[in-house]
Amino acid sequence: MENSTTLAPKKWGFRGNSDLKADPETTIRGVLTMLMSNISISDDRPVIPMSVSQPSAFPCFYTTQIATDAIVESVQATEFRSYPPTEGVLPARRAVAEYLSQGLPNKLSPDDVFMTIGCQQACHAVMHVLGGSNLNLLLPRPCFPYYDVAARTANLEVRFFDLLPEKNWEVDLDSVIAVADENTVGMVIINPGNPGGNVFTYDHLKKVAETARKLGILIISDEVYGHMVFGENPFVPMGAFGSITPIITLGSISKRWMVPGWRAGWLATHDPDGILKEHGIITSLIEYFNVAPLPPAFIQGALPYILTKTEDDFFSRILKLIKEAANVFNEGIKDLPGVTCPTRPEGATCVMVKLDISSFEDIKDDVDFCVKLAKEESVMILPGVSVGLPNWLRITFAIDPSYLQDGMKRMKSFCERHSKRA
Amino acid sequence: MENSTTLAPKKWGFRGNSDLKADPETTIRGVLTMLMSNISISDDRPVIPMSVSQPSAFPCFYTTQIATDAIVESVQATEFRSYPPTEGVLPARRAVAEYLSQGLPNKLSPDDVFMTIGCQQACHAVMHVLGGSNLNLLLPRPCFPYYDVAARTANLEVRFFDLLPEKNWEVDLDSVIAVADENTVGMVIINPGNPGGNVFTYDHLKKVAETARKLGILIISDEVYGHMVFGENPFVPMGAFGSITPIITLGSISKRWMVPGWRAGWLATHDPDGILKEHGIITSLIEYFNVAPLPPAFIQGALPYILTKTEDDFFSRILKLIKEAANVFNEGIKDLPGVTCPTRPEGATCVMVKLDISSFEDIKDDVDFCVKLAKEESVMILPGVSVGLPNWLRITFAIDPSYLQDGMKRMKSFCERHSKRA
Repeated sequence: MENSTTLAPKKWGFRGNSDLKADPETTIRGVLTMLMSNISISDDRPVIPMSVSQPSAFPCFYTTQIATDAIVESVQATEFRSYPPTEGVLPARRAVAEYLSQGLPNKLSPDDVFMTIGCQQACHAVMHVLGGSNLNLLLPRPCFPYYDVAARTANLEVRFFDLLPEKNWEVDLDSVIAVADENTVGMVIINPGNPGGNVFTYDHLKKVAETARKLGILIISDEVYGHMVFGENPFVPMGAFGSITPIITLGSISKRWMVPGWRAGWLATHDPDGILKEHGIITSLIEYFNVAPLPPAFIQGALPYILTKTEDDFFSRILKLIKEAANVFNEGIKDLPGVTCPTRPEGATCVMVKLDISSFEDIKDDVDFCVKLAKEESVMILPGVSVGLPNWLRITFAIDPSYLQDGMKRMKSFCERHSKRA
Repeated sequence: MENSTTLAPKKWGFRGNSDLKADPETTIRGVLTMLMSNISISDDRPVIPMSVSQPSAFPCFYTTQIATDAIVESVQATEFRSYPPTEGVLPARRAVAEYLSQGLPNKLSPDDVFMTIGCQQACHAVMHVLGGSNLNLLLPRPCFPYYDVAARTANLEVRFFDLLPEKNWEVDLDSVIAVADENTVGMVIINPGNPGGNVFTYDHLKKVAETARKLGILIISDEVYGHMVFGENPFVPMGAFGSITPIITLGSISKRWMVPGWRAGWLATHDPDGILKEHGIITSLIEYFNVAPLPPAFIQGALPYILTKTEDDFFSRILKLIKEAANVFNEGIKDLPGVTCPTRPEGATCVMVKLDISSFEDIKDDVDFCVKLAKEESVMILPGVSVGLPNWLRITFAIDPSYLQDGMKRMKSFCERHSKRA
């Protein structure tokens, strides 16, 4: 190899694409890495993970045997070893269509469903299908941060409308109208709410749909936490309003079945009047999946069994546990100086709490709060800035109740220690 | 709902993104759809699928029980139900590093490996990491078509260098030098060859690496057919030349294990001198996977067992079958008027044959040949234009031998029927 050095080029022609660089605070994965690097190795207490909604890590939240049995059967079936069709395995699309049609006035057909690699790829797909120069998309504030990243990579300008903490995180319809213009293509809602932990009412969703119709935009409804409600409001799928304005719903089995690592998601179009079809959205979706990575065939093949055979007992047991965890959170948060929670969680697995920064001695902002909390108490929570609300915190309460109790105690002693002396 | 019509917008603000539209001939999925639509429903003979390399569909090519057992065990393990780490599950990265290090002077570490959704996402990742305005990438002609699509979506200008059919599809190094300039970032090779069915020698690969070094570019080596060789040349991993120029290899278990539907792939960097690191490529890869869809955790979790425990008998049985199929193809192709095959396949599962269009009565070009062949004989093969060589055909021979014999017979009668009368 000695003569290869004589061949050395004057300079190498490649370099990493700087467009891929994201502010670490704008991706959950980036924040987690940053927080983990602050955990003190000399603290022998367990790390309390209240930053990511991942109850699947705790034995009390393990998935049902029915789901793993379905995968075992599917991987042994010879039909799912070859490439899946680009829009998805037909029995899976049919099963998702039936699952999502429960209670809807307009039933979905398998053609309305595309199988995706988790809800995340469904989000990526819809952004790329809607993207184009000079176009903009409306996102809620606060919002799960991946929407912002995906919209920007799809060449969509992002504009924010407000969710109102004092109204249980309902959409501020006036702020939607204020930021929309003739280049707005759609708006995103997340219901049950991430990060708000709220559940929208039928009447509110109808008003959101009517507002979208007035503006001539579609609604992207992230329902990855669909059916995970434990308060007064029932879960209402946005597809119920597809005849008011076109709806695209995103979902997966990640949350309700406690298997985010399986990456089994979907995208469904609720388009009873054929408006999405007429405007080329369906064709673009087909084109997107023609060249996109596809979810493994046998995981898709397991979905019909998983969606139809899971016992109600599993769902109700999980919801009961989450509700109990929410109660532990509600009790614990009351005692924390400098922290207020405007709404009790009623769905999904996380909640927003507000910091009164002025009440702390030596906490600069929400990021500083989270970094110091990780360092001093080995508790991981997300700074509000990562979901668009500086000086708030996003807290996941769906963890093992004993961990949660411990986490709330550590937060309490942290807040007391850093409070200004009266 | 009656008053919702009174709210109808003057116009809807969204439309499908026309950038996603690809020429149907430039994606394999697009060509297949087009060919399938030409299959005559009145033909009761089975369709002969010589268009896609997917032997997994035939019982004689079924995967090993060891692979399915590994998935069964992995999906039952509780540790793989949560989100996988962004770069991949550590034991999987370690197993791939060891698998790829066999015979290499510089061993890989787990940090050199990123887990992907099939080899396809590995390709997508490397393109996006290298992309940027005014930059260009060199692709072989002929080439598996996804590279062209992925490069363009990553904002890379595509330039082609030639593979030489008369030299067993070796790289025309002069044509590489001729098309490269100071904005060239890298070049792609596919070894064993798709679509050529060729296997590069050690000496030729070394010359390719030396040419790349002179140009100051990296090499992307698609080794998805790695180890699938049945001629005289052994498989030489391009990573062997990582100290000449930086190499990024792409691979998966799709082909060698006959499970493309599992979508289990990887990307590995061979960078003993730290040049990729120094130029920000490793950082960009980490950033790419921070927001990319990730392969399911339990499929990654099964890889250590699959990569180390698969019995040699399985590989040798499969290779023997493929070699037999190649022989059936070699015999059959000799008798076809208007068709010549410059090189016998020695690896992978497909081969290029050349059409003498002037010898046919009523065949306009390669696409016309494939459409009429589908319509009249229910045989699916890819037109050469979809891999960059008009008036060639890409034929997959790795199908059940009885189907292949039938397919070659049908092709023969088709060619004879359309030949000009002497």
